[in-house]
Amino acid sequence: MWIIKVPCSSANIGPGFDVIGLALSMYLELHVSITTSQSPTDQLNPLNCTVTYSGVGAADIDLNPENNLLTRTALYVLRCHNQHGFPAQTHVHIHNPIPLGRGLGSSGAAVVAGVLLGNVVGGLNLPKPRLLDFALMVERHPDNVAAALYGGFVGTYLNELDPVDMARVEVPLAEVLPQPAGGIDTGLVPPIPPENIGHYRRFNWSKEIKALAIIPDFEVSTAKARQVLPTEYSRKDMIFNLQRIALLTTVLSDSPPDPHLIYSAMQDRIHQPYRAGLIPALPSILSSMSPQTHPGLLGICLSGAGPTFLALATHNFESIASVIIDRFRREGISCEWKVLEPAEDGATVQEVSGDVPTYRKENKLS
Amino acid sequence: MWIIKVPCSSANIGPGFDVIGLALSMYLELHVSITTSQSPTDQLNPLNCTVTYSGVGAADIDLNPENNLLTRTALYVLRCHNQHGFPAQTHVHIHNPIPLGRGLGSSGAAVVAGVLLGNVVGGLNLPKPRLLDFALMVERHPDNVAAALYGGFVGTYLNELDPVDMARVEVPLAEVLPQPAGGIDTGLVPPIPPENIGHYRRFNWSKEIKALAIIPDFEVSTAKARQVLPTEYSRKDMIFNLQRIALLTTVLSDSPPDPHLIYSAMQDRIHQPYRAGLIPALPSILSSMSPQTHPGLLGICLSGAGPTFLALATHNFESIASVIIDRFRREGISCEWKVLEPAEDGATVQEVSGDVPTYRKENKLS
Repeated sequence: MWIIKVPCSSANIGPGFDVIGLALSMYLELHVSITTSQSPTDQLNPLNCTVTYSGVGAADIDLNPENNLLTRTALYVLRCHNQHGFPAQTHVHIHNPIPLGRGLGSSGAAVVAGVLLGNVVGGLNLPKPRLLDFALMVERHPDNVAAALYGGFVGTYLNELDPVDMARVEVPLAEVLPQPAGGIDTGLVPPIPPENIGHYRRFNWSKEIKALAIIPDFEVSTAKARQVLPTEYSRKDMIFNLQRIALLTTVLSDSPPDPHLIYSAMQDRIHQPYRAGLIPALPSILSSMSPQTHPGLLGICLSGAGPTFLALATHNFESIASVIIDRFRREGISCEWKVLEPAEDGATVQEVSGDVPTYRKENKLS
Repeated sequence: MWIIKVPCSSANIGPGFDVIGLALSMYLELHVSITTSQSPTDQLNPLNCTVTYSGVGAADIDLNPENNLLTRTALYVLRCHNQHGFPAQTHVHIHNPIPLGRGLGSSGAAVVAGVLLGNVVGGLNLPKPRLLDFALMVERHPDNVAAALYGGFVGTYLNELDPVDMARVEVPLAEVLPQPAGGIDTGLVPPIPPENIGHYRRFNWSKEIKALAIIPDFEVSTAKARQVLPTEYSRKDMIFNLQRIALLTTVLSDSPPDPHLIYSAMQDRIHQPYRAGLIPALPSILSSMSPQTHPGLLGICLSGAGPTFLALATHNFESIASVIIDRFRREGISCEWKVLEPAEDGATVQEVSGDVPTYRKENKLS
């Protein structure tokens, strides 16, 4: 039996659009067991896998292993290694506290968990850089998946395509995860990830800085949040963000943190200004809160594409949260809030044999 | 008598267009003396200042203190403090080894030297952040001046205008440094810099990394090099640079340096591709040199707007330089090359009393 834990994550952190990811201390957890006893439903389950779920948004989760993003991703990894289904009888219990569609990396966590699931049930022993390649075949924006897999505060990008390496073409997602996942096993091997698709670098994070997540009770689809962005940007706005992201990774490592430097370096002109239509409270929240008006606050931004707000702060969490919660309440929207910390270990796999748990961290493989 | 030393600097370092500056170990040097003895030409010199010059490009340097950028900048600082000329009789000898118009921050160094000159001859004792404000009134791109003043590897930007602070408007350069500088003293005080215009943050620099400057024998005007840039950029190219600059400041601090990470993080799509018209050898040099083809090389870019190339490297400097020199030679252009190191101390002022030099570093004032 294995316990797989994958943290949620926050991308962008203001100016770092499509660049920066921060793994945070709220975890998707899988309990994976393989039993030899037959159950009455096994005949109906050609993938050898049953899925159960607890946690948020249970009504929206498809537990059919052919459709579930997590198990389909695992199956993709297995089939790339000539294993055409799960070992009989695999049971996966998913416990997920990460709110869906709120900008906290729930789908990135599911993809990473799926890759780890395939890795452990298939006995593949893939190193972390290779696990990242598999995750990036399913989820092409590396910020959330690299943070979830490696942990901590990271900058990521896809490596440039090598014109000589003809395998390094972007494969349509429909070929990576065909629909349905495996009703009929054709015996074909799916597209194997090229080596070293992605690229990541970890930054330091100041021990004093906590991440306060204020999570409004509505979803913003990542696809819609990208559609509202322009395709062209002025040189001025581009340089504005370049200047700030260049400093941000350093100033967030300073101990003690400097509120003026951090607040200034978290300003953004390339995604947040365009997302007010999807999150009407956004402009007033960003413009009315600063370290001057709210002591303890260092900076505030959307988490990913929102609607979650991420406030970096050292203290006064409840009073900072209450301002944002009140602002949403006026629109009839309720919010949850949590004080999170960087999830330094990233995704972990714990092997549990009988009653004696043995720990094997995937971190050690990298 | 004072000796003022100001380092040259390299801006951009690939993706960090208008953001990143690196002070390097080649110094503009001023020898400043104030004598009480009258010279025959004093009647003709209402500014109380004589200028002599040694070093590169002597034929192009205007030694009239009304026109010389360095002394005009000093005069601006003095007049903001109600001193309407230099103390009688100020002599400034400028020794300048920094090639002009080659992308090594010669004018940024002159502006910083001018601000320091005004500060010392006027006995103003301004702290470094205030010296930066004065320098930024004359030179609005902070990358070179912040690096030259503070030293080392820095990220800079102008702070956003505070809508409440009505003084924080951009003053036309013609009002900061009217032409001529001071033929007729009107007694008017020039525009005083608002406080805290600029913003800077120092990054670490790996001790193993040296900066190899290959300096072709022609000038590129910064104004022309900006004119060739587009005013709009695609989201894709913008994100490309954001991703790389986010990592660059961290990977250049790694010891030992990782050639693959640095080479990748020094790629740029927003200024170098547009400057090939001004520097025809640029595309072939950038595309043909990498850590794989040239061991010791970490990354290569234009220094500022060029035409100087900056190759970051750990060893094999001569063989790396020879590739670029050969490439220019085919076009009939000769090159100088130098191995430089970060100028960690930035601009310094040394007070020399009689025969016994006493050292007073401006760094200590900040």
